[in-house]
Amino acid sequence: MRILYHHWLSPFARKVRLVLGEKRLDVTETLQADWDRSDQFLALNPAGEVPVLIEPNGLVLCDSQTICEYLEETYTEVPLLPRSVPERAETRRLVAWFDRKFQQEVTHPLVSEKLMKRMLGGDPPDSRWVRVGRTNIHTHLAYITWLTERRKWLAGGAMTLADITAAAHLSLIDYIGDVPWDDHPFAKDWYVRIKSRPCFRPLLKEVIPGVLPPKHYADLDF
Amino acid sequence: MRILYHHWLSPFARKVRLVLGEKRLDVTETLQADWDRSDQFLALNPAGEVPVLIEPNGLVLCDSQTICEYLEETYTEVPLLPRSVPERAETRRLVAWFDRKFQQEVTHPLVSEKLMKRMLGGDPPDSRWVRVGRTNIHTHLAYITWLTERRKWLAGGAMTLADITAAAHLSLIDYIGDVPWDDHPFAKDWYVRIKSRPCFRPLLKEVIPGVLPPKHYADLDF
Repeated sequence: MRILYHHWLSPFARKVRLVLGEKRLDVTETLQADWDRSDQFLALNPAGEVPVLIEPNGLVLCDSQTICEYLEETYTEVPLLPRSVPERAETRRLVAWFDRKFQQEVTHPLVSEKLMKRMLGGDPPDSRWVRVGRTNIHTHLAYITWLTERRKWLAGGAMTLADITAAAHLSLIDYIGDVPWDDHPFAKDWYVRIKSRPCFRPLLKEVIPGVLPPKHYADLDF
Repeated sequence: MRILYHHWLSPFARKVRLVLGEKRLDVTETLQADWDRSDQFLALNPAGEVPVLIEPNGLVLCDSQTICEYLEETYTEVPLLPRSVPERAETRRLVAWFDRKFQQEVTHPLVSEKLMKRMLGGDPPDSRWVRVGRTNIHTHLAYITWLTERRKWLAGGAMTLADITAAAHLSLIDYIGDVPWDDHPFAKDWYVRIKSRPCFRPLLKEVIPGVLPPKHYADLDF
């Protein structure tokens, strides 16, 4: 049995869930909050973070990109990295762009201030951080537009891990209704395409306790 | 001609320089400050960060891990990722550990407060951040000890990209004399081994303008 430790609020866990779905690999999902660091979980991942994947043979894998590279090397039937070495580099560059730059400039400020605080209760969101995330997201949506005006998918002609990574982050921001889709119609067209894939369904059906998504969140034709 | 845009203060650029050295690939190095975002540099890397590598065929590569994976796939004579898929995953997990966790908890606080401020002049270091970095480094050196008590190198029997990544970060902290080597003799033994490799020589000879390293920095038998 394959087990994934994940959390709704982790874009990195979302990325791995989408990759497992795209590669049609069965998995049992276990909820694990990063802030609930049990000894048992720290023994699996000393970094104390989701996602952690336990393969059917018992192998424990940590760090989302490490997990994705492992799945890519092991389950080759549905490839998510292109074959050509320069195109693989372009895909990985964009994965790093969203996992580091988008994460820092958009996902982290908005998710920690709005989603996490709403879920856990307590202080109201700090409006300065919310403003930072809402301002920065425009640059990134403009970049997605720039890329998809030149290519079918973010890294080239085929859907890759770059699209999945970007969509994993955006799906979280979309859950709180903070993606200004109307200002970026090309980025929206790209997102509609990836959101319609079967791997996305479980994410769209999921409700984070205490926080209802906006109506369009699960709508494939929003 | 191969060109690398790098900066002394970037652990990520150091990592790529060490990989190029280990793989014996000639390169012309060009200094580029992250904070000096010329249009010309942004055209190479819209993220505005070093390292950026331009290959002899003109291919532009950004993001240190993307560059390392590219070099690994292209120049296979000196491999820095193991052959076995689980060992590759362990190597990448540790690369991510140092590039993200060590970077956030140790490299960033110490380098931005001490090295960057000393180099650029201006405000004195914020002692709170310096204390954060100096406290956190003990956990990481203890982790290196734990690993090297069980394995010859960080990720297993052979030297890999995990060792190079960890050493790239530590070499920067060592430059400001903030690695408490005497408290962690096993970690020191491991660092002496990697520091003695020819790929390390250019880094050890380099002097950051305005900041002299401690005496032991370039000493292979410190």
